Amino acid sequence: MSLSNIDIAQAARMIPISEVAARLGIPDESLEPYGRYKAKVALDYLAAIRERPQGKLVLVTAVSPTPAGEGKTTTTVGLGDALTRIGERAMICLREPALGPVFGMKGGAAGGGYAQVVPMEDINLHFTGDFSAIAVATNLLAAMIDNHIHHGNALQIDVRRITWRRVLDISDRALRDVVVGLGGPGNGYPRESGFDIVVASEVMAIFCLATDLRDLRERLGDIVVGYTRDRRPVHARDLGANGAMTAVLRDALAPNLVQTLENTPAFVHGGPFANIAHGCNSYLATSSALHLADYVVTEAGFGADLGAEKFVDILCRTTGLRPAAAVIVATIRAMKFHGGVEVADLATEDVAALERGTVNLARHLETIRGTFGLPAVVAINHRAEDTDAEVHALVAAVERMGAVAVVAKHFAEGGAGAEQLAREVVRLCAEPSDLGFTYPDEASLWEKMQAIARRIYGASDITASTAVRAQIRRLEDEGYGRYPVCVAKTQYSFSTDPKLRGAPSGHAVDVREVRLAAGARFVVMVCGDIMTMPGLPVAPAAMTIDVDEEGRIVGLF
Amino acid sequence: MSLSNIDIAQAARMIPISEVAARLGIPDESLEPYGRYKAKVALDYLAAIRERPQGKLVLVTAVSPTPAGEGKTTTTVGLGDALTRIGERAMICLREPALGPVFGMKGGAAGGGYAQVVPMEDINLHFTGDFSAIAVATNLLAAMIDNHIHHGNALQIDVRRITWRRVLDISDRALRDVVVGLGGPGNGYPRESGFDIVVASEVMAIFCLATDLRDLRERLGDIVVGYTRDRRPVHARDLGANGAMTAVLRDALAPNLVQTLENTPAFVHGGPFANIAHGCNSYLATSSALHLADYVVTEAGFGADLGAEKFVDILCRTTGLRPAAAVIVATIRAMKFHGGVEVADLATEDVAALERGTVNLARHLETIRGTFGLPAVVAINHRAEDTDAEVHALVAAVERMGAVAVVAKHFAEGGAGAEQLAREVVRLCAEPSDLGFTYPDEASLWEKMQAIARRIYGASDITASTAVRAQIRRLEDEGYGRYPVCVAKTQYSFSTDPKLRGAPSGHAVDVREVRLAAGARFVVMVCGDIMTMPGLPVAPAAMTIDVDEEGRIVGLF
Repeated sequence: MSLSNIDIAQAARMIPISEVAARLGIPDESLEPYGRYKAKVALDYLAAIRERPQGKLVLVTAVSPTPAGEGKTTTTVGLGDALTRIGERAMICLREPALGPVFGMKGGAAGGGYAQVVPMEDINLHFTGDFSAIAVATNLLAAMIDNHIHHGNALQIDVRRITWRRVLDISDRALRDVVVGLGGPGNGYPRESGFDIVVASEVMAIFCLATDLRDLRERLGDIVVGYTRDRRPVHARDLGANGAMTAVLRDALAPNLVQTLENTPAFVHGGPFANIAHGCNSYLATSSALHLADYVVTEAGFGADLGAEKFVDILCRTTGLRPAAAVIVATIRAMKFHGGVEVADLATEDVAALERGTVNLARHLETIRGTFGLPAVVAINHRAEDTDAEVHALVAAVERMGAVAVVAKHFAEGGAGAEQLAREVVRLCAEPSDLGFTYPDEASLWEKMQAIARRIYGASDITASTAVRAQIRRLEDEGYGRYPVCVAKTQYSFSTDPKLRGAPSGHAVDVREVRLAAGARFVVMVCGDIMTMPGLPVAPAAMTIDVDEEGRIVGLF
Repeated sequence: MSLSNIDIAQAARMIPISEVAARLGIPDESLEPYGRYKAKVALDYLAAIRERPQGKLVLVTAVSPTPAGEGKTTTTVGLGDALTRIGERAMICLREPALGPVFGMKGGAAGGGYAQVVPMEDINLHFTGDFSAIAVATNLLAAMIDNHIHHGNALQIDVRRITWRRVLDISDRALRDVVVGLGGPGNGYPRESGFDIVVASEVMAIFCLATDLRDLRERLGDIVVGYTRDRRPVHARDLGANGAMTAVLRDALAPNLVQTLENTPAFVHGGPFANIAHGCNSYLATSSALHLADYVVTEAGFGADLGAEKFVDILCRTTGLRPAAAVIVATIRAMKFHGGVEVADLATEDVAALERGTVNLARHLETIRGTFGLPAVVAINHRAEDTDAEVHALVAAVERMGAVAVVAKHFAEGGAGAEQLAREVVRLCAEPSDLGFTYPDEASLWEKMQAIARRIYGASDITASTAVRAQIRRLEDEGYGRYPVCVAKTQYSFSTDPKLRGAPSGHAVDVREVRLAAGARFVVMVCGDIMTMPGLPVAPAAMTIDVDEEGRIVGLF
């Protein structure tokens, strides 16, 4: 295929967003248009349809990815289009792309090939301003912390123990570690701090878990920004910041409606990191879509060990969402990668390596079907270089696992290439399912992490330094033991070592650090290096992104 | 009046923005709606109407303000509404409010009383995302500078001589002076830097001076971000950043259409600081409005010594805009203030002080009529506590200056309160005018600054340290001598001492610092303390801004 993503996207035959909405039965007065092809759907309308029957929720997850990614977003889009093609009322729900990576490595993040959401440039660049609202809310709170200290520090905040960081939607490594408040008494107290990318902010996680404006306001108030000298937590509420933060986020909280290349309706809303946060689009988008369509397809970041686990143990547990089935995206590439083939050689046929690598898929499948109790199908996201022998070997391997694998060609063919997948998904959704969790609510934080490590990662146990253990105990003493655990670890391995491919077993998972997200209501367990502020590469994508003579965006890929 | 600004604004009877546009003859397909009451007008449509005849441009300026401000924005709105009421096709053009002050001291900045633009909460909070696009463009360039250095610094940028700063739309004093790049080799090279508020960024100034997307791209490329070790300037173009910056700003560049409380169409677009930048809404908004209406009312920041001077010497000079008349806003309060009354006593009648204070108005009037050659009327922006004796004294004083003063009551009465002002403006616009500048293009930078100081400020001369003089010579050697000068000084006095009220004469103006804005194409001469990043007060407005049970924004005032 010689056409780039943006060429395909700009050639799309979009229908007016008011028509997309009308097909869903959304009345015109409940639509806030942003241009002709994007709109927010009013929260009061979505609240009013909450009593309607719900459609079936389909979770798209994946094997442990290669660095290129295995195509969860394209599969979500392609499956949505295929469901529409076979006559079902379908909708998809996706995360909004972060700007930082758009200017850095990745180019766009709105699907690819013939499986995209459009208008692609808008979705990738500014969209409806949600991320900037989240940045403003985060940075307003930061400014109010330093301002409070500057004006006398009535709350006795310990400047050495402020945990709240500022954010930008730019990949900027120079901002990871900074000293603020320099320049003399007029500028406040110097202290060490740093910036994260917007998607890593707790406000983003809260935004995507909030059930309505009131819940949003309450959660924002719960945020712990730091500690006093005698170690009492200081909340956003104590600074009087959560009302203004809610005001800033009010309009953003309404889900964004767009469409796929084939005019399937799509909510693209919110986008928390899948390591330090839960990696799923907003609860409000997904739960609302279930009242608007019979099938709702959504994805969760990274492989099933991270994305699906958090989808189930954080999002479903706390909100009541219940998926009917799951799609596990696998590629021939990824199976060979897990079978030991180096990245440079992945285009070469190697059935033996592929078969070795299916152990990775097998464990993810066991998680989905065993631990979570969900009917599941494996979608082989087809690439031009895949050989018939490889595809047959993978299909056969999945059959041996007692499951079905379907070849999906949505990237090259759009929804038509994923019709078989859609039919299998419809069949699975009719099966009974009873969602299971990795751990019960009442387990301790340590037990929760242990359960994830043993049941999902195949680890023998978890370890932690005395300091981290003490920190975990302190969080339990403070009443945060009831929260779910959000694991931050590498997406490339079941272990914490990104180089351990396949399905490693019996390893120990070391919890290096624990962070409280009191507003998001989970406890982050950091198991490995996590980067909350990316850097730009030697030749950033920003150097090729431009506007041509006709005012068209070019160079987004 | 017991109703707050937001109460009045939320009770407004807005008409759909498509209808506002239709009344201006803008076809529906050239409108990009942002909700029901805001829209961007497509740039290609505005380009297509450029050959149409132009309406009359009216500049609203003011006396040197008291700290409370004298009401240029409300007068602009009230005059627009009054022109509409007396049967003229009128439009107004305003700057977008900065978020920082909304959360800090000021509350909203979209007019006040019965002279506001609406939807007020939207305009004050996120609006259409222009400021966040400007922040992203600015911060992307900053990230690309540090990234270039991190990856080998092929351009040999001197890390000690990087002048480009990051921005946020938050008042945050802790970010004025920071050290970035800490934390080890992976995070780049540590260096001193800082953040400004978005309205102080050069990108904002460029955005408001650009004549089209191509001009925007060219100017962004011209930005000087710093210097090499051998003092050669490094441009945004050298980093390959200006294409992506233009892509980020593309949608934002289309002017935002809203309406007043009385449904007069309003462009609210762009908002550069009036000290370090030129303080006028976007050229594209004003120039486009002139093809859509017979009268276009716009304002320029601060008093006539700063705002009107830059409007004429920077904006009009470089773009060809030509105002037909000016309105000088004066208040009884401000006249008493310039006559020596302290802020706490300004509500008490004091005709003698008022008469002494009119020297301030007289000099501004002389600037407008003498230096700039514009017909002018004085608008007495009426306040409830003004006494008849005071009003009569001010009217008489203006008569002695050979001009007309009109009492305007738009704050309390809306457009009906400014009809007399509107009739006087229509009369003045029929008079011949021939715009004069403070200095010719070919004068040196030093001569330009000297001309402003002598002709506008009543100063005897300008002074500067040897270092600053050398810097000015260097800029001339580099070819920047042809640019206009943009003065950053206190708005409270004709001098550089904010405490010198009235109309001081014979003082010296010291140029403390010179900054090149190569993309905006002016040279900033800093004459006094200027603050490019405000701080929050003890009890920021953010502590009272909130969302109520019905989802309405409250506490904006």
